[in-house]
Amino acid sequence: MKKLAAFIFPGFQTLDFFGPIEMFGGLRDDIEITLVAETLDPVPSVHGHKLLPEKTLSDGHNYDLLFIPGGDAALDIAENESVAEWLRQTSARAELVMTVCTGSVLLATTGVLDGYKATTNKLDFIATVPLGPKVDWVKKARWVEDEKFFTSSGVSAGMDMTLAAIAHLFGKAAATEMAVGIEYEWHEDSTWDPFSTLAGLS
Amino acid sequence: MKKLAAFIFPGFQTLDFFGPIEMFGGLRDDIEITLVAETLDPVPSVHGHKLLPEKTLSDGHNYDLLFIPGGDAALDIAENESVAEWLRQTSARAELVMTVCTGSVLLATTGVLDGYKATTNKLDFIATVPLGPKVDWVKKARWVEDEKFFTSSGVSAGMDMTLAAIAHLFGKAAATEMAVGIEYEWHEDSTWDPFSTLAGLS
Repeated sequence: MKKLAAFIFPGFQTLDFFGPIEMFGGLRDDIEITLVAETLDPVPSVHGHKLLPEKTLSDGHNYDLLFIPGGDAALDIAENESVAEWLRQTSARAELVMTVCTGSVLLATTGVLDGYKATTNKLDFIATVPLGPKVDWVKKARWVEDEKFFTSSGVSAGMDMTLAAIAHLFGKAAATEMAVGIEYEWHEDSTWDPFSTLAGLS
Repeated sequence: MKKLAAFIFPGFQTLDFFGPIEMFGGLRDDIEITLVAETLDPVPSVHGHKLLPEKTLSDGHNYDLLFIPGGDAALDIAENESVAEWLRQTSARAELVMTVCTGSVLLATTGVLDGYKATTNKLDFIATVPLGPKVDWVKKARWVEDEKFFTSSGVSAGMDMTLAAIAHLFGKAAATEMAVGIEYEWHEDSTWDPFSTLAGLS
């Protein structure tokens, strides 16, 4: 059983978070999800719906997997040093660190992605990647895998990245079975990225 | 501004609900979302994450749009007569009624879909559609539109149905802009349904 820390913060993007959670959550014999936030207070999504966290940052870093959603608010919380330190320490011991959209930029601001390839959403790409100046940002990618870091493009791309992470952890058949079970068309090619072109990046 | 009632119940399927909520929620100048449940107690998803409702069934039926997610638990709550009556009355006055996955079956059990075309998820299709014997169930469809009823296939299909509903309400450009903004590849053809074939239905 792998312990997954799903980090939430006020203003997290709804589908960034719950797309992957649908998939991780479907592997209940293999993955135990814990919602981690700064405090145990209800955490509103960007759309205002309140979710109850289960653990706080001070409960430690003992997780096998770390999952970080995005949203515009990810850029605000990047200035919180206690969050940054928790992300650094939890990333250091995790087997896999997964980000969606500006969650990649949040992680980049901690220095954890320095020297690694990574991606983030395409509409805000030019504006946000300077916040991680030592990251090797990839302009055209649905998601990027570099050692233990699986980073994805915007919002919906988190679901394709998550299926790739499930394939990495449990085999491709497990990922395919998950996608079919939820009637999801998995974009299996990590270089598929029409949104990069639409945004004028490639 | 259109008032949308998003009905939640213990065990609702995570992505059935939050995929469409990402999209409706992105139209905050046009749609006001209210989470409606039987009581104001936290409502756990099928994956155990607790969401705080905003209104209860007894707060009335005054909504322009009704949205009903699925999950195995939708079949349990179908036996609850106060839920059934709220669904009937809210559907009767709503301009659009939208369901995902077994949410279609839940609505069907109330009689509201009698005589209408509708669809639901494909893996459980044969087992569940007898619960709505007077519905004209469509075996191969990503989603089905029949007058004010927009019903979708399993889990992920709710996102394609929601974009179709947004196109219906606010024009196709609004739906396309929404899809691009969240880097979602919209399946615009409602007859696209490889899962029907995989399930041996077509």
